[in-house]
Amino acid sequence: MPAPLAPIEVREFAVPDLPEGGGLLRTAYSEVCGTDVHLWHGRLAGVPYPIIPGHVTAGILDRSRGPLNTIDGSRLKEGDRVVFFDVHRTCGRCMACTVNRTPTRCASRRVYGITDSADDGLFGGWSQAVYLEPGVTLAKLPDSVTFEDYIGGGCGLLTAVHGIERAGIQLGDTVVVQGTGAVGLSLVALARIAGAGTVVAIGAPAGRLALATRMGADETFDLAATTADERLERLSALTGGQLADVVIEASGSPKAVEEGPHLARNGGRYVIVGHYTNAGDSRLNAHEQINRKHLEIRGCWGSEAGHFLRALRMLERHARRVPWREIGAKTYALDELNVAIREAEALTVPKALVKPN
Amino acid sequence: MPAPLAPIEVREFAVPDLPEGGGLLRTAYSEVCGTDVHLWHGRLAGVPYPIIPGHVTAGILDRSRGPLNTIDGSRLKEGDRVVFFDVHRTCGRCMACTVNRTPTRCASRRVYGITDSADDGLFGGWSQAVYLEPGVTLAKLPDSVTFEDYIGGGCGLLTAVHGIERAGIQLGDTVVVQGTGAVGLSLVALARIAGAGTVVAIGAPAGRLALATRMGADETFDLAATTADERLERLSALTGGQLADVVIEASGSPKAVEEGPHLARNGGRYVIVGHYTNAGDSRLNAHEQINRKHLEIRGCWGSEAGHFLRALRMLERHARRVPWREIGAKTYALDELNVAIREAEALTVPKALVKPN
Amino acid sequence: MPAPLAPIEVREFAVPDLPEGGGLLRTAYSEVCGTDVHLWHGRLAGVPYPIIPGHVTAGILDRSRGPLNTIDGSRLKEGDRVVFFDVHRTCGRCMACTVNRTPTRCASRRVYGITDSADDGLFGGWSQAVYLEPGVTLAKLPDSVTFEDYIGGGCGLLTAVHGIERAGIQLGDTVVVQGTGAVGLSLVALARIAGAGTVVAIGAPAGRLALATRMGADETFDLAATTADERLERLSALTGGQLADVVIEASGSPKAVEEGPHLARNGGRYVIVGHYTNAGDSRLNAHEQINRKHLEIRGCWGSEAGHFLRALRMLERHARRVPWREIGAKTYALDELNVAIREAEALTVPKALVKPN
Amino acid sequence: MPAPLAPIEVREFAVPDLPEGGGLLRTAYSEVCGTDVHLWHGRLAGVPYPIIPGHVTAGILDRSRGPLNTIDGSRLKEGDRVVFFDVHRTCGRCMACTVNRTPTRCASRRVYGITDSADDGLFGGWSQAVYLEPGVTLAKLPDSVTFEDYIGGGCGLLTAVHGIERAGIQLGDTVVVQGTGAVGLSLVALARIAGAGTVVAIGAPAGRLALATRMGADETFDLAATTADERLERLSALTGGQLADVVIEASGSPKAVEEGPHLARNGGRYVIVGHYTNAGDSRLNAHEQINRKHLEIRGCWGSEAGHFLRALRMLERHARRVPWREIGAKTYALDELNVAIREAEALTVPKALVKPN
Repeated sequence: MPAPLAPIEVREFAVPDLPEGGGLLRTAYSEVCGTDVHLWHGRLAGVPYPIIPGHVTAGILDRSRGPLNTIDGSRLKEGDRVVFFDVHRTCGRCMACTVNRTPTRCASRRVYGITDSADDGLFGGWSQAVYLEPGVTLAKLPDSVTFEDYIGGGCGLLTAVHGIERAGIQLGDTVVVQGTGAVGLSLVALARIAGAGTVVAIGAPAGRLALATRMGADETFDLAATTADERLERLSALTGGQLADVVIEASGSPKAVEEGPHLARNGGRYVIVGHYTNAGDSRLNAHEQINRKHLEIRGCWGSEAGHFLRALRMLERHARRVPWREIGAKTYALDELNVAIREAEALTVPKALVKPN
Repeated sequence: MPAPLAPIEVREFAVPDLPEGGGLLRTAYSEVCGTDVHLWHGRLAGVPYPIIPGHVTAGILDRSRGPLNTIDGSRLKEGDRVVFFDVHRTCGRCMACTVNRTPTRCASRRVYGITDSADDGLFGGWSQAVYLEPGVTLAKLPDSVTFEDYIGGGCGLLTAVHGIERAGIQLGDTVVVQGTGAVGLSLVALARIAGAGTVVAIGAPAGRLALATRMGADETFDLAATTADERLERLSALTGGQLADVVIEASGSPKAVEEGPHLARNGGRYVIVGHYTNAGDSRLNAHEQINRKHLEIRGCWGSEAGHFLRALRMLERHARRVPWREIGAKTYALDELNVAIREAEALTVPKALVKPN
Repeated sequence: MPAPLAPIEVREFAVPDLPEGGGLLRTAYSEVCGTDVHLWHGRLAGVPYPIIPGHVTAGILDRSRGPLNTIDGSRLKEGDRVVFFDVHRTCGRCMACTVNRTPTRCASRRVYGITDSADDGLFGGWSQAVYLEPGVTLAKLPDSVTFEDYIGGGCGLLTAVHGIERAGIQLGDTVVVQGTGAVGLSLVALARIAGAGTVVAIGAPAGRLALATRMGADETFDLAATTADERLERLSALTGGQLADVVIEASGSPKAVEEGPHLARNGGRYVIVGHYTNAGDSRLNAHEQINRKHLEIRGCWGSEAGHFLRALRMLERHARRVPWREIGAKTYALDELNVAIREAEALTVPKALVKPN
Repeated sequence: MPAPLAPIEVREFAVPDLPEGGGLLRTAYSEVCGTDVHLWHGRLAGVPYPIIPGHVTAGILDRSRGPLNTIDGSRLKEGDRVVFFDVHRTCGRCMACTVNRTPTRCASRRVYGITDSADDGLFGGWSQAVYLEPGVTLAKLPDSVTFEDYIGGGCGLLTAVHGIERAGIQLGDTVVVQGTGAVGLSLVALARIAGAGTVVAIGAPAGRLALATRMGADETFDLAATTADERLERLSALTGGQLADVVIEASGSPKAVEEGPHLARNGGRYVIVGHYTNAGDSRLNAHEQINRKHLEIRGCWGSEAGHFLRALRMLERHARRVPWREIGAKTYALDELNVAIREAEALTVPKALVKPN
């Protein structure tokens, strides 16, 4: 991606010299996510174009210099199926990293596919090979997890793991997920896995709702076919008037933020995880929707290495049953990336995959 | 208060027969709070007019039938200076009371001065005597606390104790309080007592800000003399760009809700405790103010017996130094209550006191 | 149960007159749990013998006076399959109930089968009919849940729901459960349902471990065949040296309490839910097992109405797959209760059921 | 300190060359704490003797190479009074640092005065100059805080800030602190500052208890003059039978760990922060002291940069009133360190200071 709105170009790079502790990954899959669309629109500040997009990526360890260890302590060898956490550096020294314990808000955070120039190396998955910087968080892909499972979950699964952590679901809780994109679909699956009672997905179109059901939703409310009042009424009927213990926003829509608190019970929780870009303001009534409801609203930004590790554990245990692989609906080669980004922009598929080799 | 908007009348009632475990309090002070103004405007649903307003009240135990015990287990005797928790009943059986652990949202909650008709007894403090129903939460006013200290804190102090609990202040946190009414002033004092670092009060007019300083604020921002941008800039300068760890809204203004999240740091907390009535909508940007900030917003409704008890402990230890008594700026006799309610409506004093005897 | 250590007698009682809001249940099943053995040994203080034991019980609503509602708001009718929360009263006024928010420590707590004399009514499930006091927490048994599922879970399931709440399991956590009695088996199932990664059960004998596996354990460590050092080593091997995120004690053994903290990782959690009676002291090293481990140890006492409701939701959703019914291994008629209590004392079955009709 | 049990020697070192971002501090004060005694006894594993002890230290910035910034973002200049966080490195990559969020348990943690050999540089405060490694967390000593205030608080104050964080004190809580050494005295002060109600210190001898009172204790129980039963009885009398909401152990005694849970109320919290070395086992009864009490016990290990920053804020605001400087009771020159360590070993003073220049 040479610059915002310029066509993606396929370029050749020299094979990098590896420093001690570095490695090279032969890419199996990367993805086109919403962030990549924003990168292409030039909406993120400080991006050092040209860049190689593709922040979540999986592949096969081609070679390494010196031994490489996974985060849980096992040794990697060449030929292993390897995944890595895309946030390759936080400073560990600033207020965000230390005092506030919010490393996802570290101003020096470096993320594959976003913050590093293509001039500095192979820091993105839209490439046949990815450079593994010394110190990057590595893991083996569990044997039972296919590349397609992993990349179908992709960055949305990590975001969803963090969202579930913020949601604090108790056994039997009624959980509503707003949004049936990649993040929302993973949230549906994880809410179910976390022991929720009734799980309701709100979204569109019908194909996504059907996938939400396969991911674990008990009920789906079609955004296109219902009004907010009707959805509130249906939820109330489903729950004997109690409404949802937890509502999680994963739609990116300001309207969803207006609706969400109405769906939560008194003393419930509302997690906002879908607003990774500015889609406009929402009108909220502090009396009715927050103060009198004794509601708790929690923003949720980025993910940490622990979310990456937990995502892998979820895939290992549940990917046979939960169809994460269906989220990655369509696959593109390197020379089809201009099409891929257009289609991701149009939201025609939950997630576009990139297969550079 | 015979009906909404009708003049307050002084009526005579027979001295009640006391059931076992009941008592009668000779009123020293009650108060006129914002809720009383709403009652007079008829804005609360289901109020069984005529009522005797005055939910927080202090007095002297006149007589009792059988022994009365305080919540912390000591025995009351006639002549003791006694205070009681105004929420005299929650059902203890509903979802709110049990499953959700939000007793302040119990639909059967009964509150002195609000939910009981004058036809049913002396359930309000705008009266020379108050009936102490069996089972009401009682406490002795500590010797070092004057009636004026207690009623100056009043219901705002209880609300503030709950707000501080929701705020989860850590030692040295920068805390901003929006609003310098009775609740806001108590929040300032309690934030300081809870170990905050810098405490900033936002409010008006100058007299209130001066009182906020006496309550414990390090800095005050005058609403009338500064814009929201200027306040953000001043807070940023005060905190080396870090902004507030905790912001607490106690103003009842929709504009405050729009400003508050901007004042909080990434990963901070925003407690909304001032919107006890509907003052209109606020415009919030979910991306900038919640999601990317990784912010936590907590509504805070009503108070529990524990907040009442903790309020008393705060008064006992700190009322010599913290001028709660100054919040209760003006005192009215029973035949001046129509004036009192007008002045409370006009917000000319932080709190109007009622002295029926 | 006329007195401690005296033989259980079968007595006849008059059909009770029902007050408004009361009901009568025709007992389907009750249970013999560890508490009943303690009752029979006279180890609980203040028990008003003679009593009718049997605190967790299910049956069919025989008749009621006035309408009865379930906790989630639906109306019961005669013939419904009904269950109720055995704690039928807490005071709602004391420090435990209000200030400390620990209603399970209310000194006035009343529990079916334990705190009410047989002279006061049919307050226990070892009886053909059970009196439903006005205000007791009621629920319909969901259609998909058999009486055998419900009573197989029994009081151990409620205790386990509370234990899981205290455990705060995150997605993918490694969880160790010490003990494979009724509580431990339910904990294994619920840890799995709550999204744990690896679940390990420690217990004996082999039959119980096989049932633990059917309940959801990935690994079982046989107490009889391994030493504590071997178990630590096996856990370490299973987790790449990380040990358990959460360990839950449900064995009642002081030795388990000595072993548990060693099995938890640094910064992990240890929940103690199995010591409902005094089985002696444990030796702990505060440096190695608590301080340096940065460990959190949480006692867990009794259960609340919310745990009862969540237990029902768990049964409704999972009882087809999770064999709670197998925990209730053996069923006794009213005239076999002396045998039942002897066998419960000998721990030969995880749980003895009582079928009075 | 050339080796365990060998006499401390005064050695000369060359003035170090500074790398970019490094600095040199002219030492004002360092301290002799319990850890130094353990170092001298050779009780810590992996210490690369010879070392320069002295982990918490304050001084004047002598020179730097390139600009140095404080953690809250201001620029340091030569001549500034500077303090630094003694943990100069954690890996930021391991399970402890990332997944478990327990950086104080990072296996690669490096601490001034403990983990770095004297052959590698001036990494300890028992020296006229201290090397400030690039990236170490720096702060200016606030103008109102003297060197004597800071070093009187010393490492015990940081530990206490972490302990208070783990304690989760609510306004008006009754807090008991076990131990009146450097950590216990700071805990007393911070519990008071955090809004506790009654604060009780348990310790000895009389001089320490008098200092505890000056630090903020309302009551002191003399260990030498009372039995554990008498202390429990006095606490019960003080609290109307409620006992303590929070008990914090800072004594290092196994007996304290046995006593502590008895002093906590049902549903209370017990923080163990004093067992930084193995002083032997404690006998605990899981039924009476943990399970039935519904007690929460929290170990607390080490401190993080946030505790360092909060400690400074506490000193800035409260050191005029709270006599931290009195904890540092006696000062030693470099050639008196063999005496200092003997006296620290004998616990004759709460804290021995080192003044190398």
